[in-house]
Amino acid sequence: MRIDRLKETATKQNKPDVFAVFNATNITYLTGFQGAVALLIPEQGQNVLFVNSVNYEQAKAEVKDTQVQLLKRGENIMDIIAQHVSGRLAVDTLSIESWRALAKAVGNEEKLESINQLIRGLRAVKDEKEIRLIREACRIADEGIKAAAQTIKAGVTEREVATEAEYAMRKAGSDGVAFETIAVCGVCCAYPHGGAEHRTISEDDFVIVDLGATHKFYRSDITRTFIAGKPNQKQTKIYETVKLAHQRALESIKPHVLTREADLVARQIIEAAGMGKFFVHNLGHGVGLEIHEAPILGPDSRDIFEVGNVVTNEPGVYVPGYGGVRIEDTVLVTENGAEKLTKAAYTL
Amino acid sequence: MRIDRLKETATKQNKPDVFAVFNATNITYLTGFQGAVALLIPEQGQNVLFVNSVNYEQAKAEVKDTQVQLLKRGENIMDIIAQHVSGRLAVDTLSIESWRALAKAVGNEEKLESINQLIRGLRAVKDEKEIRLIREACRIADEGIKAAAQTIKAGVTEREVATEAEYAMRKAGSDGVAFETIAVCGVCCAYPHGGAEHRTISEDDFVIVDLGATHKFYRSDITRTFIAGKPNQKQTKIYETVKLAHQRALESIKPHVLTREADLVARQIIEAAGMGKFFVHNLGHGVGLEIHEAPILGPDSRDIFEVGNVVTNEPGVYVPGYGGVRIEDTVLVTENGAEKLTKAAYTL
Repeated sequence: MRIDRLKETATKQNKPDVFAVFNATNITYLTGFQGAVALLIPEQGQNVLFVNSVNYEQAKAEVKDTQVQLLKRGENIMDIIAQHVSGRLAVDTLSIESWRALAKAVGNEEKLESINQLIRGLRAVKDEKEIRLIREACRIADEGIKAAAQTIKAGVTEREVATEAEYAMRKAGSDGVAFETIAVCGVCCAYPHGGAEHRTISEDDFVIVDLGATHKFYRSDITRTFIAGKPNQKQTKIYETVKLAHQRALESIKPHVLTREADLVARQIIEAAGMGKFFVHNLGHGVGLEIHEAPILGPDSRDIFEVGNVVTNEPGVYVPGYGGVRIEDTVLVTENGAEKLTKAAYTL
Repeated sequence: MRIDRLKETATKQNKPDVFAVFNATNITYLTGFQGAVALLIPEQGQNVLFVNSVNYEQAKAEVKDTQVQLLKRGENIMDIIAQHVSGRLAVDTLSIESWRALAKAVGNEEKLESINQLIRGLRAVKDEKEIRLIREACRIADEGIKAAAQTIKAGVTEREVATEAEYAMRKAGSDGVAFETIAVCGVCCAYPHGGAEHRTISEDDFVIVDLGATHKFYRSDITRTFIAGKPNQKQTKIYETVKLAHQRALESIKPHVLTREADLVARQIIEAAGMGKFFVHNLGHGVGLEIHEAPILGPDSRDIFEVGNVVTNEPGVYVPGYGGVRIEDTVLVTENGAEKLTKAAYTL
């Protein structure tokens, strides 16, 4: 159980043994429920999930192993939590305003200790159930890419590509998009986060489609780059460079290795092709309940790959005023290396 | 210009005259751009938008009237901002960790002052352009409700209703959903935030559909409650009660009045029908760049309606183990009262 893992890890790191969890995603991680105000984990006795009246009946019906307590109008969650705390209290993440309110309620700011990084680390290593859910989210995303591939041709708009991809994912079982679908063409492929506007695709355009699905709160992330017509020599060179970087980076992902090593593998290939300055982002990021979580795969990261990490592998080349290419899969770190969870065909 | 309004309001309230804005939505509000790290507004001279390399080219192309500065790898945004600050600094919203980092960078926590509430207040009053964008988001949401109405019948699943509604909104111009579409049937109508699962609609089921569209970052929010077959007496009574509460609440919305007065109007009607304990949430909330923003329309709110507020009017009755009804529109507060921006037909 995830709460047991949290407690064990906290004990090892000499953190407090009472926890107040406020971040909505962390609460979902620890309880499986979305829509609570806070989760209190006492040293002993039952955990308490505080829920407003709007979600109370649903929480009572759906939450197991945790006491669900109604947070009534006018009740202050900070005061209620303070009643359960005598010594130190571990909290996950709070705004400065909420931190001050909680510090006032418990009487002393020194009692509070942030364990944001600790939970970030726990969430980075997925358990069997999480991997099963992400696999399904990846399968659905593959269907989105297939629909995009069938839609893309000269004369179609970016928006139409996104619309059909999302519809296909919904039909394949998606609970909703994992993030705002990106479908960009032509010079706008130079913008990694370019949206999906009303621009019309031309024959000689690169088209980047970056999308993901959600399945029971877990997400997936995949990118493919298409060409409506036939690639010219320059396009082919960019595409092949990114593809090679993507392939070599995948081969370099394995447990106990610094994540920045994988980034470096991809970056060196792109640099060797003379395109280094056009790879303007990290190689990848963790994926799970959030679309960006630990670990980070980038030059500045100190993260280390662990078995059970789910990360993106997404090198790209973005040439201002010309266009760009990105190829991305969601992959699982295994004992022996990395397994691709997204499997849609590559395009060129 | 919104930044001028921010400065004027801050001066009136004796707040600092240098601003560091970190919240992504606040940055979009002040610059029209999504995807920056921070916005620095000095006392004099040009405003600076700090952007990572991933979004730098797009920001340069799209941002007007503001200097776009590349935040390079290894550069610390807190240190850079501190270089621009000698006296007090207004910040919008920060986690405790970021607050401490910024306090360290500027040398003294006492220099920092949160102006979260001030920006919250500014954003609550929409300007002409914002209202135009929200109108369009509402028009698109109406198309989603029409598609839902055409899809709902016995034998169809909640998920299918959500899928067709979202597809119709995309085709009508939506940039994406404003929030996770809710389509619930039967006893699950008792859960205000019940999702859209694989349950099949029966003839005698209530079906609640709550959805919204996004248009150039602005959102809309509408709910209609349907019945696949013919309503029985109990269903009719619940529906008519909610409808009356919805209508009277709309009539009570006008500038210079406490928002909780409108909540009370709806609540008293539902209480008089003996269903008071089943109205388990506030009457409504502001809508704009975020789906929940100021003002709040609830019993505990101290907000006052102002001309230019865009809010939801959404009374509901939720009977555990039985079902529920919610009717919701997005409305604009005008000089004379309130104007409905969502216009899809009521259902029963």
